[in-house]
Amino acid sequence: MIDFQTQPDRYRHWVLRIDDRVAFLDMAVDPGAGLHPGYELKLNSYDLGVDIELADAVQRLRFEHPEVGAVVIGSTLDRMFCAGANIGMLASSSHPLKVNFCKFTNETRNAMEDATRHSGQRYLAAIGGNAAGGGYELALATDHLMLIDDRNAAVSLPELPLLGVLPGTGGLTRLTDKRHVRRDRADVFCTLEEGIKGKKALDWRLVDELVPAPAFDETVARRAREFAAATDRPALANGVELTPVVRKFDDDVIEYTQVRVKFDRIRHVASITLHGPQESPPVDGDEAVDAGADFWPLRLARELEDAILHLRANELEIGSILIRSEGDMGLVLAYDTFLLSQADHWFGRELLLYWARLLRRVDVTSRTIITLVEPGSCFGGFMAELVLAADRSYMLLGERFEGDGDIAGLAFTESNRFGFPMSNGLSRIETRFWGDDEGAARASQAIGEKLDAGSALDAGLITDAIDDLDWDDELRIILEERAAFSPDGLTGMEANLRFPGPETLETKIFGRLTAWQNWVFSRPNASGEEGALRRYGTGVRPAYDQRRV
Amino acid sequence: MIDFQTQPDRYRHWVLRIDDRVAFLDMAVDPGAGLHPGYELKLNSYDLGVDIELADAVQRLRFEHPEVGAVVIGSTLDRMFCAGANIGMLASSSHPLKVNFCKFTNETRNAMEDATRHSGQRYLAAIGGNAAGGGYELALATDHLMLIDDRNAAVSLPELPLLGVLPGTGGLTRLTDKRHVRRDRADVFCTLEEGIKGKKALDWRLVDELVPAPAFDETVARRAREFAAATDRPALANGVELTPVVRKFDDDVIEYTQVRVKFDRIRHVASITLHGPQESPPVDGDEAVDAGADFWPLRLARELEDAILHLRANELEIGSILIRSEGDMGLVLAYDTFLLSQADHWFGRELLLYWARLLRRVDVTSRTIITLVEPGSCFGGFMAELVLAADRSYMLLGERFEGDGDIAGLAFTESNRFGFPMSNGLSRIETRFWGDDEGAARASQAIGEKLDAGSALDAGLITDAIDDLDWDDELRIILEERAAFSPDGLTGMEANLRFPGPETLETKIFGRLTAWQNWVFSRPNASGEEGALRRYGTGVRPAYDQRRV
Repeated sequence: MIDFQTQPDRYRHWVLRIDDRVAFLDMAVDPGAGLHPGYELKLNSYDLGVDIELADAVQRLRFEHPEVGAVVIGSTLDRMFCAGANIGMLASSSHPLKVNFCKFTNETRNAMEDATRHSGQRYLAAIGGNAAGGGYELALATDHLMLIDDRNAAVSLPELPLLGVLPGTGGLTRLTDKRHVRRDRADVFCTLEEGIKGKKALDWRLVDELVPAPAFDETVARRAREFAAATDRPALANGVELTPVVRKFDDDVIEYTQVRVKFDRIRHVASITLHGPQESPPVDGDEAVDAGADFWPLRLARELEDAILHLRANELEIGSILIRSEGDMGLVLAYDTFLLSQADHWFGRELLLYWARLLRRVDVTSRTIITLVEPGSCFGGFMAELVLAADRSYMLLGERFEGDGDIAGLAFTESNRFGFPMSNGLSRIETRFWGDDEGAARASQAIGEKLDAGSALDAGLITDAIDDLDWDDELRIILEERAAFSPDGLTGMEANLRFPGPETLETKIFGRLTAWQNWVFSRPNASGEEGALRRYGTGVRPAYDQRRV
Repeated sequence: MIDFQTQPDRYRHWVLRIDDRVAFLDMAVDPGAGLHPGYELKLNSYDLGVDIELADAVQRLRFEHPEVGAVVIGSTLDRMFCAGANIGMLASSSHPLKVNFCKFTNETRNAMEDATRHSGQRYLAAIGGNAAGGGYELALATDHLMLIDDRNAAVSLPELPLLGVLPGTGGLTRLTDKRHVRRDRADVFCTLEEGIKGKKALDWRLVDELVPAPAFDETVARRAREFAAATDRPALANGVELTPVVRKFDDDVIEYTQVRVKFDRIRHVASITLHGPQESPPVDGDEAVDAGADFWPLRLARELEDAILHLRANELEIGSILIRSEGDMGLVLAYDTFLLSQADHWFGRELLLYWARLLRRVDVTSRTIITLVEPGSCFGGFMAELVLAADRSYMLLGERFEGDGDIAGLAFTESNRFGFPMSNGLSRIETRFWGDDEGAARASQAIGEKLDAGSALDAGLITDAIDDLDWDDELRIILEERAAFSPDGLTGMEANLRFPGPETLETKIFGRLTAWQNWVFSRPNASGEEGALRRYGTGVRPAYDQRRV
């Protein structure tokens, strides 16, 4: 089982040091501590385990260190920044594992950009040695790339010449769409095994700053301090420690405190139930900080995120995820109001941004997501985003036959308008009605109302409303049907239908780039017996099927 | 060999009838006339041969029928509009052929939309029976879908439930991005084998108009006449007959009149040389019409298009295409000026639009394109777009050692600013410098100048300038290097680097949708022994690897 929970005192691969308002996060990969046997993580090459620690550090810096305004990604190795994804790991991984690895690493890099852009925590790359492949892609996710000028250190994307695959962790897209490297230069660069160093790397905009070797560390630190000085994060606030996520695994159930996951493996279904809060929100952001990791919206987010990541990595045959909720809608809406009201408090801002990132993880989770709105559920405000993030949503119409007379309610708020942008830059409501002004207007009128099934259906905010008589049967049929479809066909369909409208750097990475990379991965020229991934390091050249597709 | 040349009197699958300003193009697929043995084209199902005729008709309607303002796509079959791509054909095709088939059919559908949007020739679909899968995708490419209301006819995208693949000929993208069907409804629709008919099809925006059966033909004709009446195309102009393209195939050469293709199959390279005009352009559009299919820019375009399509379909192991030109730059620029000056003449407009479509075909051709600018070449104006469409472009610096003292020249004009939008909606120059304002300004200043290699390099409009001493060696090394890379890796890399910046319906179809479809096609769940494509029609259900990726 791959565990996505870790903490700094358990890191094997990173050294985190905080100096006043600057964090130094140095890669120091332990070659012998790969997630799986069979490969050695030499030269700061990485596997999913290395990236889980990086993601953890990026997350903790936001919550535990409100004072940190700049983060330097560096390396403890001499002459090597990072050699990229470990090739032995790639060659020995199954297709689903390779793809899942790339997705998670993409999300980690996006989280770095999100911190830079929205959270006043600007990332720098201190490239004191070679940054190759995924190593350079990691650097590309920072806002300022500083390359040592020692006649030796180069940046490179040697995936194509060495491995026959793409720089698929955002590399190709960030070259052209973030750094605006001209396409023909990008083409040349991506075919140069040895990469580009020195002044040419600067001229081609592959890095932002070239630093003479003797002054490297000092210049990096100074630049980081300058960036940190410009942050809007508070210098003296207390952080929120991300204490361990509490969970208990049984055969068919995972119990968290606010989240419960139940498996029906025969039907390839997992059901996730989210619990509403037990008490009212605090009076302000500082009081929320005092609640720490127990603060309900944070706890819920961390548990849901862990559940989603666990399903992705460890439950490959779960094809459909049902999302339910149970709780007091009034309290949920009170928290929703509270979060929006604290958007200018550093912790409030972090909570909103975290939920936005978590929801974007849901958007790119390649499982069918179905949200169920039933009597007793509490999908309101930010929780109602899960109704919009789903491939389909169903709401129980009227009372349950043997219920207590309750009916299902659903409530969208201002936070659904602005709070949680998708990776296309739009809200989920805007995306849902993209190009349909009439539908958008109708939905907009429903925001702020408490909706029953009929009014939610009329507003186009759910897929269907079903009464109790048909509820179980309809649901069974939908899930059986889903389980009978090609899992690959579903993955492809959902990846397309979830992203109508405009595209951005992020959607292009998950769309165009990832889809092509997955295709390349699945082809014999990469993964076959004689393919480049398998032949790498054997001294035997790969044998390619020369037919262009 | 697959031949992309045809003409109406050789059509096996379509009936074209013109009634005043309306063209009726009825699908009447001959089941026994498939391109390859082994499948029957029942129920208006299609293979590449059917689509080659459709593309031919779409093209001829523009050039040969300036008076036609509306085109109705219909069917001669009772209760069947079109059953989509033939499944036996798909199941028996190699991966490269399947992908090439989808690319061409996508281009044909885009050409229909291009005619509707830019050429005053609006397409309608007369759906008098079932439109299934690719049949409905064909209808989606029209501007107005009319569905017969006979309790029987439905539109459907049953690819996922029946075949385990995607509605990949634009279907998923056009549902959400063109017709603005809500994503959850699109999800439901794509899982319904039987599709949706009647009022629900209208309510869900799957069609634009529902027509009672008895009045169907009459209403379609009336609607088409209404659309045609609004066209800006001339009522009484003479058309330009697209006489057969003249070409001669030898082992290593294809000779057209303005184009020559030379193969070096050992190095996986084809070299295309384009010839400049022999005489000055005519005085106006009408005189150009008199020249007919011999009019140089039209002849050159048709020959180059045939060469590109031929390479794509019949020369799969050609990985790199060199593009050269020979001719009088002054005359080329005179034609370029002429074309721009005739943008408001129907024939001038068609020529500009045709070159734009042809260049977009180059953009999505999955071969490395390298344009070579040498002494004696004539890349000016619209021909210079081929310098920008290339993955790389090289220009000879200075004179040839044994030359006549000529140096290579290159000239961009206003037509490079506005004339030939890529599928992202931008010009190739805008795309090249997308996000790089300084580079864009420098390039902009070079427009209108006659550039030598040094100034073209300074303006960022070529990849490199190489002198005669190194020219042959450098080129040899580049081509050998290219041939040593994974063909799949190159396809994926080029598909990403060629499209920086914003995305549109068209780029999403060739990017996100196509890449996912290619991935799905290559997976055992679709194409394996027990996959859905192979098992279709056998009565045995496919056996799926249930792991989600």
